[in-house]
Amino acid sequence: MAEGKVLNGVSVDKLFGTIDAVKEAPGIAKFKFRAKNKWIKGGLNRTTIKDFYGTQKDLTHKKQFELEADEPPLLLGEDKGPNPVEYALTALAACLTTSMVYHAAAKGIELRAVEARLEGDLDLRGFLGISEDVPVGYENIRVYFKIDADVSEEQKEELCRMAAKYSPVFHTISNATPVSVQPDK
Amino acid sequence: MAEGKVLNGVSVDKLFGTIDAVKEAPGIAKFKFRAKNKWIKGGLNRTTIKDFYGTQKDLTHKKQFELEADEPPLLLGEDKGPNPVEYALTALAACLTTSMVYHAAAKGIELRAVEARLEGDLDLRGFLGISEDVPVGYENIRVYFKIDADVSEEQKEELCRMAAKYSPVFHTISNATPVSVQPDK
Repeated sequence: MAEGKVLNGVSVDKLFGTIDAVKEAPGIAKFKFRAKNKWIKGGLNRTTIKDFYGTQKDLTHKKQFELEADEPPLLLGEDKGPNPVEYALTALAACLTTSMVYHAAAKGIELRAVEARLEGDLDLRGFLGISEDVPVGYENIRVYFKIDADVSEEQKEELCRMAAKYSPVFHTISNATPVSVQPDK
Repeated sequence: MAEGKVLNGVSVDKLFGTIDAVKEAPGIAKFKFRAKNKWIKGGLNRTTIKDFYGTQKDLTHKKQFELEADEPPLLLGEDKGPNPVEYALTALAACLTTSMVYHAAAKGIELRAVEARLEGDLDLRGFLGISEDVPVGYENIRVYFKIDADVSEEQKEELCRMAAKYSPVFHTISNATPVSVQPDK
């Protein structure tokens, strides 16, 4: 399909084409995303991302992505990469931004710039197994968006609500998502 | 503190030293992790990670980390990086692995190799705003660990349970974590 009208770097024609195709055949919207991880040493490990499933077939990225996670020295690592909970903020930031940009494009709202800052509270007594009374995960995550566009303050608030409403990572984190962890047979 | 005994690449003496320090002064375990994101174009955006707060002071990583997220062409991007929901799997994989490795070290269990593969089901009708009846986030995430160590199958299952029990990202995803999204004033 031709690019056609492009807004915020998103082909609006392709976006509406995708929406129409999914309405006709909802099964093509069922995706499976995948990752593999290999432990290296201590708090250092590497995730690789290559293939996924969608539109009823196996698909691959143009190249394999490799992401290293580590811990800072204070948490007994060597600081060779962001730590896992910082990757969680990265996922949330990227997803909310993309959700805002795509849905603004669909609504005809032009964005000049979007920046986000995120902060999450984590009490390490959970991870360390010291207390059962504190949450092991983030207690709270706050996301603040700076939006440059010809819109009112109310519309900026609406853009933030819209970003959250349609963001898969926002929902994965803010709802209780079932995760099973087991040995590979 | 000296490295002392090291198991799985983790200084066990430092780990128990940290646990003892936190037991005496629980406030030092209250961390704040942070990320900044800048939208580039369409589904492409860049997260930077530099500073955090812990042990009652502001801290910085040895260097600033930059992570680009994008979408594959099928989802109207140019595939310049993993997409946001793949970053979420990366966070989960890295966190479960580190949780397993650190807690195994604390228990005196030597690990030779740990690999994980993850898969999550995502119905894009949520993101596209086509149906209110499907979850917008991951419906389900499955994590499979291949563990090479001198332990029984039961102990491998116990290592998986332990990894989940102490993993901040596992809890952030599998519990309902409050996330606020608002304009930056």
